[in-house]
Amino acid sequence: MKINLPFSRNLRHQLRQLAKWIAIITPLAIVVGSLNAFFLWLLGKATDFRISTYEQHAWIIYLLPLAGVAIVWVYRKFGKNAEGGNNLIMDEIHKPGGGVPGRMSPFVLFSTVITHLFGGSAGREGTAVQIGGATAQQLGNLLKLDEDDTRLILTAGVAAGFGSIFGTPFTGAIFALEVLTIGKIKFNAIIPALFASVIGNFVTTAWGTHHSHNKLINITDKISVQFNENLHYLDISLIIGKIIIAGMAFGLAGYLFGELTHKVKDTLKAKVKNPYLIPVIGGVVVIIAVNLLGNYDYIGIGVKAYREGGVGINTAFQEGGAEWYSWITKLVLTAITLGSGFKGGEVTPLFFVGATLGNTMAGLLDAPVALFAALGFIGVFAAATNTPLACTIMGVELFGSEYLLYFAIACYTAYYFSGHTGIYASQKVAVPKH
Amino acid sequence: MKINLPFSRNLRHQLRQLAKWIAIITPLAIVVGSLNAFFLWLLGKATDFRISTYEQHAWIIYLLPLAGVAIVWVYRKFGKNAEGGNNLIMDEIHKPGGGVPGRMSPFVLFSTVITHLFGGSAGREGTAVQIGGATAQQLGNLLKLDEDDTRLILTAGVAAGFGSIFGTPFTGAIFALEVLTIGKIKFNAIIPALFASVIGNFVTTAWGTHHSHNKLINITDKISVQFNENLHYLDISLIIGKIIIAGMAFGLAGYLFGELTHKVKDTLKAKVKNPYLIPVIGGVVVIIAVNLLGNYDYIGIGVKAYREGGVGINTAFQEGGAEWYSWITKLVLTAITLGSGFKGGEVTPLFFVGATLGNTMAGLLDAPVALFAALGFIGVFAAATNTPLACTIMGVELFGSEYLLYFAIACYTAYYFSGHTGIYASQKVAVPKH
Repeated sequence: MKINLPFSRNLRHQLRQLAKWIAIITPLAIVVGSLNAFFLWLLGKATDFRISTYEQHAWIIYLLPLAGVAIVWVYRKFGKNAEGGNNLIMDEIHKPGGGVPGRMSPFVLFSTVITHLFGGSAGREGTAVQIGGATAQQLGNLLKLDEDDTRLILTAGVAAGFGSIFGTPFTGAIFALEVLTIGKIKFNAIIPALFASVIGNFVTTAWGTHHSHNKLINITDKISVQFNENLHYLDISLIIGKIIIAGMAFGLAGYLFGELTHKVKDTLKAKVKNPYLIPVIGGVVVIIAVNLLGNYDYIGIGVKAYREGGVGINTAFQEGGAEWYSWITKLVLTAITLGSGFKGGEVTPLFFVGATLGNTMAGLLDAPVALFAALGFIGVFAAATNTPLACTIMGVELFGSEYLLYFAIACYTAYYFSGHTGIYASQKVAVPKH
Repeated sequence: MKINLPFSRNLRHQLRQLAKWIAIITPLAIVVGSLNAFFLWLLGKATDFRISTYEQHAWIIYLLPLAGVAIVWVYRKFGKNAEGGNNLIMDEIHKPGGGVPGRMSPFVLFSTVITHLFGGSAGREGTAVQIGGATAQQLGNLLKLDEDDTRLILTAGVAAGFGSIFGTPFTGAIFALEVLTIGKIKFNAIIPALFASVIGNFVTTAWGTHHSHNKLINITDKISVQFNENLHYLDISLIIGKIIIAGMAFGLAGYLFGELTHKVKDTLKAKVKNPYLIPVIGGVVVIIAVNLLGNYDYIGIGVKAYREGGVGINTAFQEGGAEWYSWITKLVLTAITLGSGFKGGEVTPLFFVGATLGNTMAGLLDAPVALFAALGFIGVFAAATNTPLACTIMGVELFGSEYLLYFAIACYTAYYFSGHTGIYASQKVAVPKH
């Protein structure tokens, strides 16, 4: 009776491969983690300048159209195919072709900061993912990696970008694989992606960056209805029923966000001849909206409310912390900002839309507010990006394990009801949802 | 500008499909959850009878060879292809053919209880999965489901079985999908699987069944080294380095377990002409081992140590709670028990092997014992079944979210170093690991 141990045959090959990837991924993750730390620092400064410590600078919003023109001009003049953004990176992972241009990284970094400085409504994960992807491509070119290895390093770059921007490394690795195709995950790149995401997050944190969500929101403490082991089975069934109903709403909101962003972009492109007029229109609409609303709650990153009685992601976890129209207002303003040429991610706005919609659904369904805000936070994101697994895991990384099952039910319900599109045009459908 | 809402086209189709699956899965999950509650109750009684409350019955181990003959006889005489077990279910999901026989469910339930009553070293998840799969097939036949729907209901049955036996519903759903192929997950059955797993676990719990791992092991309280935010980056790097080394050991242990189980089975089959002699040999070896060891720690389910100073899964989380030879002893005894015709699962023994190996590795590497026992608990299982994602999630469902990232690193490292075989012969390789 002879047992073949795996190392008798291929341990040397395996270790050599491991060493190779460690040598490739470590510098990649250090660069991406550092760039993201710089980006987050700059983003914080821009947001603070506009609204927090110096509220007198809030007038800067009136320069938003001009800032948009500058961004469009720079991308048109010098951007080459950097405009392709996240979709270009996904295309290159599906089938390596022309490559991701190195300039994508600084371009998206600074134009995102400008968007936030002047009060556009946008996020940051798109920026982080593009920094990750573009850096990975440059390193891949330098090392003359072949097609398969290029795919792996690009995926690792996306994982490092995503994982380090939100402080959720395992989510980053799963997201990078799950986002490529609907209904299927291929795990070929999981080891490099996980490694890149861990190191990337490590480096971002080591630079002293604080992730805004971490620890900010302790839903377990805030949940108003006590869930304990003595909870009657009927109560648990009832809460699950409510989660499914809310999950359907999250799914439709995620779908709506994707569709609206695409439509705004396509319509403006088709109807407006002068490309520089597009950001002007977008900027003016945002200015009008801000004046109608009478506050700055729905522009910028939206993580915190900067005024007494304001709405932000953080307030959505408390009763009365969101208006009934909060979610749709943020959704529309973000679609207009991103659809008219400004830069930034979609995910933080999706968190805002989800958390405030969760707050509203909790009121309608007589459910615990903090829990439903958390479910919306991850559920709308799951729906818009078709990544229910990554979002369930993100729920655990941000809010703890106690409600893991509720996270899963909300994310998968939202995913099921969000159609086959989503915010990424380059995402492929491997297995239809229904 | 017109937004197509998903319900304008296919909401009716979607809701009809949902209603259909709810109508199919609900009774399935209720039956599987109830059968598993009954199985766990009976298993508890059998274990207690042999060793816990009435230690005078420990002599029953001398009847183990006879019990084995009875099991082999019943399976040969009446079992038809029920012998195929988990692999048969996986084959039917890959490509529905002759179907899973209904008798698999009672056969495996009672023969597992007999294996445990007479002191074989085995687990229970195989039994639960077979109960789930066989019940699903019967329901599918009754409803005359087509091939695609049969695949889905079988997957849901496996999820319900796995989720309810360990009290880990999300793990159950992911496991049922992940176990089918190495390196790829197809999410077509995720909604039915998740639904089945949630209801199944709900029903098992409602019958008053207590899952032995839940809450038993609170590693967060037990960790001897304090992990806090002030921990130096060097300390964190060091602990991650140690986890990777331990993960390699977990991977090799999982690989060894799979290989040894197959080899014992094949060798006995090839060398021993009389099929009834096989369980006699296996039983006698177990009896000799117990006498050499001088205790009953390494037979049966092994969740708890039943004597002062004994070894069980629970003791492995404490310093000095395992011997250096604990892991290999349990590994060999389980391979002999299952390889010689007794019935039961592999997973709880894998937990035992992993937790005790983790305990030993913690000693060698000067690392926190409770954490490394937890990492081994899930890591060896991940390696032997090639399901690192399900095992990472199981870590969260059992031990909380605080160490999620360490769980992921341990499971994926173990998976990477465990070769392409594993305990399930019917598992396919979609994407090679390296």
